[in-house]
Amino acid sequence: MSGRKPPGEFALIARYFAPLAKGYPGALDLTDDAALVEVDPGCRLVVTADALVAGVHFLADDPPDLVAKKALRVSLSDLAAMGARPFAYMLTVVLPTDTAADWLERFVAGLAADQETFGLSLIGGDTVAAAGPVSLSVTALGQVPVGAELRRSAAQAGDAVFISGTVGDAALGLRILRGEVGGLASAERDHLVRRYRLPEPRLNLGSRLAGLARAAIDVSDGLVADLGHICTASGLAAVIEAAQLPLSAAARTALERDPGLMKVVLTGGDDNELLFTVPEDDRDRVRALADEIGLKLTQIGGIVEGSGVKVVDEAGAEIALGQGGWRHF
Amino acid sequence: MSGRKPPGEFALIARYFAPLAKGYPGALDLTDDAALVEVDPGCRLVVTADALVAGVHFLADDPPDLVAKKALRVSLSDLAAMGARPFAYMLTVVLPTDTAADWLERFVAGLAADQETFGLSLIGGDTVAAAGPVSLSVTALGQVPVGAELRRSAAQAGDAVFISGTVGDAALGLRILRGEVGGLASAERDHLVRRYRLPEPRLNLGSRLAGLARAAIDVSDGLVADLGHICTASGLAAVIEAAQLPLSAAARTALERDPGLMKVVLTGGDDNELLFTVPEDDRDRVRALADEIGLKLTQIGGIVEGSGVKVVDEAGAEIALGQGGWRHF
Repeated sequence: MSGRKPPGEFALIARYFAPLAKGYPGALDLTDDAALVEVDPGCRLVVTADALVAGVHFLADDPPDLVAKKALRVSLSDLAAMGARPFAYMLTVVLPTDTAADWLERFVAGLAADQETFGLSLIGGDTVAAAGPVSLSVTALGQVPVGAELRRSAAQAGDAVFISGTVGDAALGLRILRGEVGGLASAERDHLVRRYRLPEPRLNLGSRLAGLARAAIDVSDGLVADLGHICTASGLAAVIEAAQLPLSAAARTALERDPGLMKVVLTGGDDNELLFTVPEDDRDRVRALADEIGLKLTQIGGIVEGSGVKVVDEAGAEIALGQGGWRHF
Repeated sequence: MSGRKPPGEFALIARYFAPLAKGYPGALDLTDDAALVEVDPGCRLVVTADALVAGVHFLADDPPDLVAKKALRVSLSDLAAMGARPFAYMLTVVLPTDTAADWLERFVAGLAADQETFGLSLIGGDTVAAAGPVSLSVTALGQVPVGAELRRSAAQAGDAVFISGTVGDAALGLRILRGEVGGLASAERDHLVRRYRLPEPRLNLGSRLAGLARAAIDVSDGLVADLGHICTASGLAAVIEAAQLPLSAAARTALERDPGLMKVVLTGGDDNELLFTVPEDDRDRVRALADEIGLKLTQIGGIVEGSGVKVVDEAGAEIALGQGGWRHF
């Protein structure tokens, strides 16, 4: 841990954060200026950084352990989309000066739990007390065997487009928390809200896609936007068949009550599922992989010549996404 | 660049930040989920993270190019203290929603200039528009030959304590900006303010200290506090001779006008000079190194048995630092 800090912050680091660094010798117990990092022979380091701010990426009254886990998981999801396995992270935390010890304890407990789940160690960072909302910055470090890196740019025309898990849950969950979606049973609400608060980085899937997927990305900006990123990077276009979208039972109920929510499903973000393209002939390999790792992998469309992303209904008619949808930049 | 963001932020990344990533192929033009990083054979990766918040680490009306440079340089200074050479960094930026384009342009120009100065590339990050002050998080990546890493914990009793450059300037500069120190000539004020706003990471020195320094740290918390970190990590104590402190002409003038500012010099932070210990017999090697790299290196005291840091005047009497000074935690 580094940077200038008052005595109170040393105590805070020693008490709350240093225990999170015990598992990684190169973290030097957070007592030195920087951490020493080793990468396995034949592997390449993969690094990603995300900032999360209360009121933007999570709600100020979200449970602090889930805030901590979400902060880690959005970065882990980025590593998954590169085919990498995470092993360490740096964390900088800007906390309001009136942050309660209880909030911090629950936040650190969330980090500790996810370190266990994903085999991670904290290896450095910084804490600052300041006016303003809670602001977190995570830099996650992973490694990938040289040559096994997944990229966004290698899609080819004719590729099938697959997505893991279900789509739209997180965006619907956020709208439930905002009071914009009603009429669901309590279990359905809970499922969708949980999907917003606690994404599931698809690390197993990502590390198995080498040699199978041509292009991959994680869904964080929204299904259409993220498929758009693959298209832009690959110089191609894509068609999504709305009827093929894998929906959770809760999302299906929400859509039955308000079909207009399809736009939320298509353009909302935060699912952190993996979206990837494979040669059409390899679709059976994807299905076999789905069985093997116990994760639903659904073909939702295909890559074609052109530019942009089009969503069509069962009759093949285009579904307009309007201004809320994806646009070129 | 990763994380969920509105279309305006894509444009912002493409326009302002992607050009900063051109020099590093593994940055993938900031268009993928993460960056791919290589370390030279025989080297170890060194990583450090710092958060800087307006109103805490810099002033809201500081020139944005200097804010950018300071954000980079405090992290580079941490790498210098480990003996490492920087090559890349990740940056997350939380900007008030009303940030002017001009501010951002000058901020990015500062990053670009220091990338050139220090041979760095931006390789990833995130931008968020949110309420609250400007908040920056830098993760700097460097490398050090295996075995050449400098640590805080290897000081030995009898070591001489050296510091690079001059001490106390940055803390005096901050107090000038706050209107707490008066009576200086304009050039003196400018010198001290500049030392606060634009630290000079001692990268050449750091990379030359392998095999010479036993323990090293950069002065960010304050001279006494940072020497205290070496002492705590090494299980020893230190004595600083106040009369030996290398002071700039401006700092000397300030101290002549108000001898009470000696406490600021001893306990203020932000100088980002390197503080290191060497065996007494190697003091001539330090002096030769100083000549070679053209940087003042001054012995300011020694390591002794015990715990804590004591500052003495020319008569050998202890200078009390009071509550503002360093304390154990």
